[in-house]
Order: sequence, then structure tokens, then C-alpha cells
Amino acid sequence: MTRTVLHGASEVFVGPGERIEDGAVAIEDGRIVAVGPSAAVTREHPPENADTALDATGKTLLPGFVDSHTHALFAGDRSDEFAAKLRGKTYGEILAAGGGILRTVRAVREASDEVLLANLLGHLDAMLAHGTTTVEVKSGYGLDAETELRMLDAIARADAAHPIDVVPTFMGAHAVPEGRDADEYAERVAEEQVPAVAEQGIAEFCDAFCEEGVFSVEQSRRVLAAGVEHGLTPKVHAEELSHLGGTKLAASLGAASADHLLHATREDARALAEAGVTAVFLPGTAFGLGAAYADPAPFLEAGATIAVASDFNPNCYARSMGFATTLACVGMGLDPAAAVAAATDGGARALNRDDRGTLREGARADVAVVDAPSHVHVPYVFDTNPVETVLKDGEVAHGR
Amino acid sequence: MTRTVLHGASEVFVGPGERIEDGAVAIEDGRIVAVGPSAAVTREHPPENADTALDATGKTLLPGFVDSHTHALFAGDRSDEFAAKLRGKTYGEILAAGGGILRTVRAVREASDEVLLANLLGHLDAMLAHGTTTVEVKSGYGLDAETELRMLDAIARADAAHPIDVVPTFMGAHAVPEGRDADEYAERVAEEQVPAVAEQGIAEFCDAFCEEGVFSVEQSRRVLAAGVEHGLTPKVHAEELSHLGGTKLAASLGAASADHLLHATREDARALAEAGVTAVFLPGTAFGLGAAYADPAPFLEAGATIAVASDFNPNCYARSMGFATTLACVGMGLDPAAAVAAATDGGARALNRDDRGTLREGARADVAVVDAPSHVHVPYVFDTNPVETVLKDGEVAHGR
Ligand SMILES: [Zn+2]
Ligand SMILES: [Zn+2]
Repeated sequence: MTRTVLHGASEVFVGPGERIEDGAVAIEDGRIVAVGPSAAVTREHPPENADTALDATGKTLLPGFVDSHTHALFAGDRSDEFAAKLRGKTYGEILAAGGGILRTVRAVREASDEVLLANLLGHLDAMLAHGTTTVEVKSGYGLDAETELRMLDAIARADAAHPIDVVPTFMGAHAVPEGRDADEYAERVAEEQVPAVAEQGIAEFCDAFCEEGVFSVEQSRRVLAAGVEHGLTPKVHAEELSHLGGTKLAASLGAASADHLLHATREDARALAEAGVTAVFLPGTAFGLGAAYADPAPFLEAGATIAVASDFNPNCYARSMGFATTLACVGMGLDPAAAVAAATDGGARALNRDDRGTLREGARADVAVVDAPSHVHVPYVFDTNPVETVLKDGEVAHGR
Repeated sequence: MTRTVLHGASEVFVGPGERIEDGAVAIEDGRIVAVGPSAAVTREHPPENADTALDATGKTLLPGFVDSHTHALFAGDRSDEFAAKLRGKTYGEILAAGGGILRTVRAVREASDEVLLANLLGHLDAMLAHGTTTVEVKSGYGLDAETELRMLDAIARADAAHPIDVVPTFMGAHAVPEGRDADEYAERVAEEQVPAVAEQGIAEFCDAFCEEGVFSVEQSRRVLAAGVEHGLTPKVHAEELSHLGGTKLAASLGAASADHLLHATREDARALAEAGVTAVFLPGTAFGLGAAYADPAPFLEAGATIAVASDFNPNCYARSMGFATTLACVGMGLDPAAAVAAATDGGARALNRDDRGTLREGARADVAVVDAPSHVHVPYVFDTNPVETVLKDGEVAHGR
């Protein structure tokens, strides 16, 4: 048995609404076996008997971040589009010049398996150093069965090779490929890609970009229903640029989450809450566009579970969940405790993971040790990484 | 003689409007002796003859950041005010509850010299790791001669102890002390504090917070004119929360800079440009408040020199100048090249430093090696630190 004790922490952020001052966490074989006041925990689990003991005086113990929405597997460099937008180019002009998502699709199709894996592992290293211990990664830069499968294969290999748990989402319905008809392509995703992915058993979720000019509610439903039939849990990119109905689609399908939600209504919020679908907010996207942030109030009022995620992609170069909490506070008006809970427990809910996102007894021992005396400092520190040490399944995966 | 050669860089960001692809920089005894295409520079300065050679393939060489406006020396913890504001507390209510600047003043007065120095050194470490090689630090949390001098002494000791060059600014006119009259206090600053600071020779600039409810234009002029008389170059906190006239005051006094400028007019911009006063923008402050950003357009149109700085203080916990460039782009609409120039050359102009802020021949060899192929990635990467290695005066001060 491997024993670890983290003790003397200024604060243990156990989970939503539950914090302990001068707290400790005891770990056995990768699971949390005790959490509470330091004196009580260390009486039962003396640091001197542990294989690893960490004096967390002045520090905060958080559940490792669960980043529930990323497009972290890609190739190529689209930083020039960031500059072009600042010079006044519209997204339409960038697309017309061969930029945007379809440019990344071309780069991913051309990239070798080795390059895809190496790119993702590099990003996972950065995420781990910033306290993320579980991350969802979507395919969707292949847009054909072969490349979508190659992406999901790279995701599986990264999961095996890296301490971070990588949760695979199939997203053939991320964009309409060049020169194709949306209806015809959605049909191909449902008929060809979904079964091929299911046969390989390398995806857990199936996501669709339900948006004006991308996939309609009906086309999204076609893809996601095929996914359900093949055992893939739905997720929906919903109401990002317009109000189309993706949120209600998510509710009707019992999706794990509906994501973005910038144009969602109160009625949408209630539908999510009633269906038990997690509302995932991605403030980094709004930040990067200099646009308005989503309003979490209707979702909180409706009693929906909310999550905050990074949306890391070539258009939103954001890999720190601490920064996502900063944006959730200064942009969306969340309380620091709510923001941190949304980035940990909320993320776990959005990924249907009951074994993480809190530091409760029985949970996986995924812990971020923050070099600051309370969880408030996580959003309060805007632009430097406050995470010092990260444990994944009880083992030190980053830091000392 | 100590020789260093950095070669093969994807880009050398020499200075405003001057970039070299596949470039190199040669350094002798802390100064840049050559910059240009890698082949040409390495012919004259072969890496194999250098004491230190760095293959910068795939990387970008930037001038070290010059952060020209910070309140980085403080004590205490005001993260709870960040949370209180998110729960709807106004700044007035926070002040009434004993919070705000005067709370930091109490904490600094109570802090020992050792604590003050240690706090500042910790922040300088974080800044250096993010590529800053010169930083201005203001006093102004003392508000009495004794504590202002103690702050400036800590700043001088930090400068001596740390690779970063720390530029000291006296800011006795940062706030009106509790229970005091602004007119009477400004008079004391001018009559007592300025001469005491000048006698010690431990400040280079004199700054005043010219703002409604703080110091009027006349009170600010009184303090800054006393500074000029004693050899301290003026700087002004101008037009942050209202339009009071601090910018024209800065122009009339030949200040080094006017800072904040959120409510400055076109006429103000022209006045700065004509007087050769650098316009310093502090987008982190607006970001933290969820407020509108300053508009740099009138200043660029007027031909003013612009700088971007962090404004690091307990109300704006921002120490990364890379993040300041991100905000300058996504918040203020600057082009990436303009943002990086404002954070390097612009900062040097705001501090009257002609020997830094560019990688031109003869400049101090303060270099940030960025692990990305162009300067665009500095703002493009939102929330992780792209700086890998930092040289100060030709020596590796951070990284490998
Ligand atoms: Zn997405
Ligand atoms: Zn200031």
C-alpha cells in the first residue's frame, strides 16, 4: 500500500460549499481515505508513517482541475489569424483566404501520427503544470473517417502515455468539409463515422456544432442519435453565435453537457436543469474575441450544474484552468468559490465522472497544491501560475 | 571579455518596425555588438568562440520587457476584496469597511524591512521568469516620510540583490492618509517628503495620483514641481476614473509619462505627443474591473509614444508583461507588433532609458527567449508563459 499525507494546508477546498481551514488529506493507493482538520487526519494517518508527506503550510489543496471542453489536438499555426483579426479582418474574410477551422483540418490531415501525438503531449504537459488532471479532447479536425480515427487514436495514446486522464470525444460534426453539403455530410457522419468510431471503442462522447451555417438542430440530432445508438453519450455546442435550439436538443437527448450558451434563454436554462445536463461555459473564447461573456445567472437560478472549461483550440490559446476561473469571475461575475467548483466538480459532472472533481473520501487523489492561502487566489492571480505541485491518483505528477 | 551568441532564431524582434527572420544577436560584456541575419552575425561572431552559445531554432528573441508602472512593493493580502467586489460590494463600501489602498498602507507600515524586501524579491522572481528585465516600482503605501523612505530603501536593496533593474519612483501623493486634508497633505509631501527623498538620493521619478477625490491638478502640480526642483522627473496618474486634467499637467511639466488615460481626449493625446511625454496604458486594471479598456487610437494618430505596463498592485494581481500584451491586443485592439513594442521600447521611453527596450547594437543585452516562432505568439498565448530563457546584461538570469 502506498500512503501519502498532505497536511497543515491553510485551506482544503473539498468541493462545492465545503472548505476546511488548517486541513489535511490522506491518500492510500491513489484514493482519498480521509479529509478533515489537520490534527484529526494526522492522528489517524501520521505523516511519519507515510511514503510521501507534504507540509502544505500556507498553501491550498484543490481537486485537480477537470477541463471538460478542449480541441487540444491539432497541427499547424494560426497565430497569423489572431493578428489579422486585430487588423480588422472578419472571420468570413479569414475563411475566404483559406483560414479558420478548415485550415487546421488540412494541417491535421497532413500531419503524421507522431506529430499529432507529440503536439498533444506538449499541451498536456502545460495543462498538468497548471493543475489540470483530467481533460476532455475532441476530434473534429479530420472530418473524414480515416483522420477522425487517427485523431482518436492519438488521444488514446496520449492518455496512456501521460499522467493526465484524457477523455475522448468524437466530433465528426465539427464543421462541414470544403465543398460538401451539410445535410449529406451529417448523414455520412451518422452512417459511416459513428459506427467506425464505435467499432474501435475509442470515444466516449459524441459532440456536434449546432449553429447557424454549420449544423442545424435536425442535422445535429441525426448525428447525436446515431452516437447514442452506438453507445456514445451526447454533448452539444449550443447557442454560441445565435439561438438555434441546441440546448433543448441536449436536454431532449439527455446529453452530458451543453456548451457555450452565450445566446441561451431562461427557458433553455430550465430545460438543462430539469434534464440534468451540465451547462459548460467557455469564457476564454469570449475573452479572445473581445466579446460579451455568457451570463451564468439564469443557470444558477434554474439550479443547473455549471462547469467552466478552457475551450483550448487554435482560436483560443488558453491552457490554464486557473485563468478560466479568473475569466469566470471578472467576465462572468461568478464568486471565486463557484468558479473553482465549476472548474473541478462541474467539469467532472460535464464528463459523467463521479470519482473526481472533489477531495471527498473515496475520490481519486487528484490534487493541485496551490502556493497561496485560499482558493480565492486562484482567480485573483491573473497571469502567473499559482499551482506548485500536482498529484494524479496519489502520485506526484508535477512539481516536487 | 565575455561573449554570448544567440543564433538561428526564427525571429529577432529588434525594435519597433524592425524584425529579422533567421536572426542572431552577438553580445560582448553585457552589450549587444551585432544583430542581423544569423549567417552574417555568426560569421563575425562564431558560436564556437563564444563563452555561451544558444541555438534559438524555432524561437523568438525579444528585448526583455520593460514594465514601466507597478506598485509591486506591498504587504498584506487583499484577495478578499476581489471576492467582495464579485459579490456586489462597491469600492466605497470596501473603503468604508477599512479596505482599499489605506489597508495596504497599514500593512506596509506594520511590515518589517525584511518582509518588505522579501515580498518584492518574490515578485521580481515571477516577473523575471516571465521575461521582464527592467521594472519601475513606486512607493506610496507609506504616506509618511519614514515609511516612504523605508519603501524606497527596500526598492534599492531589491535592485542591488536581483538581476532585474528596479527603477524607483517616489509616490507620497498616492492617496490622502486617513483623516487628513488633501491640500494640507500635498503640502507636506512637497515640503517634507520630497526633500527627504531627494536627500537620500533613492528615487528617480516623482508620481502623483491626479484624480477626483484624491489630488487635484493644483495639488498634483505642487508635489510634482517640488520633485522637479529636487531633481525628480515627474510622472502622472492621469484621467483614470474621470477627466481632470492630469494629462495636460504632465505635458506642461515635461513628465516622463502620463499613465492610465482612460478618459483622456484627443486634445490630451496631442498635448502628450507635442511634449514628448509617453502615454502608458495599463489594461490589466480594466481587465480586473471588467471595465472598458483605454483607446490607444487618438494617441497613435497624434504620434505619441505609447507604452503598455502591468500596473501590478493588490487590486491587479498581474505580473506577466506577456499577458499585458494579450490584453493590449484583445482589449485595446493593438496589433501584436505594436503591443510587444509598447511593452519593451515603449516602457524604456516611459522610464527615460535609452539603453534598453530594443535589441539594437549598443543596447544592454537584456533578452527574452520565447519558445515560439514569432512575436505574435506572445499575445496569442493567453495564459501560459512562453518565455523560456532570460538574459540580463548578457548573463543568463532565468532558465537554461
Ligand atoms: Zn468547442
Ligand atoms: Zn498606478
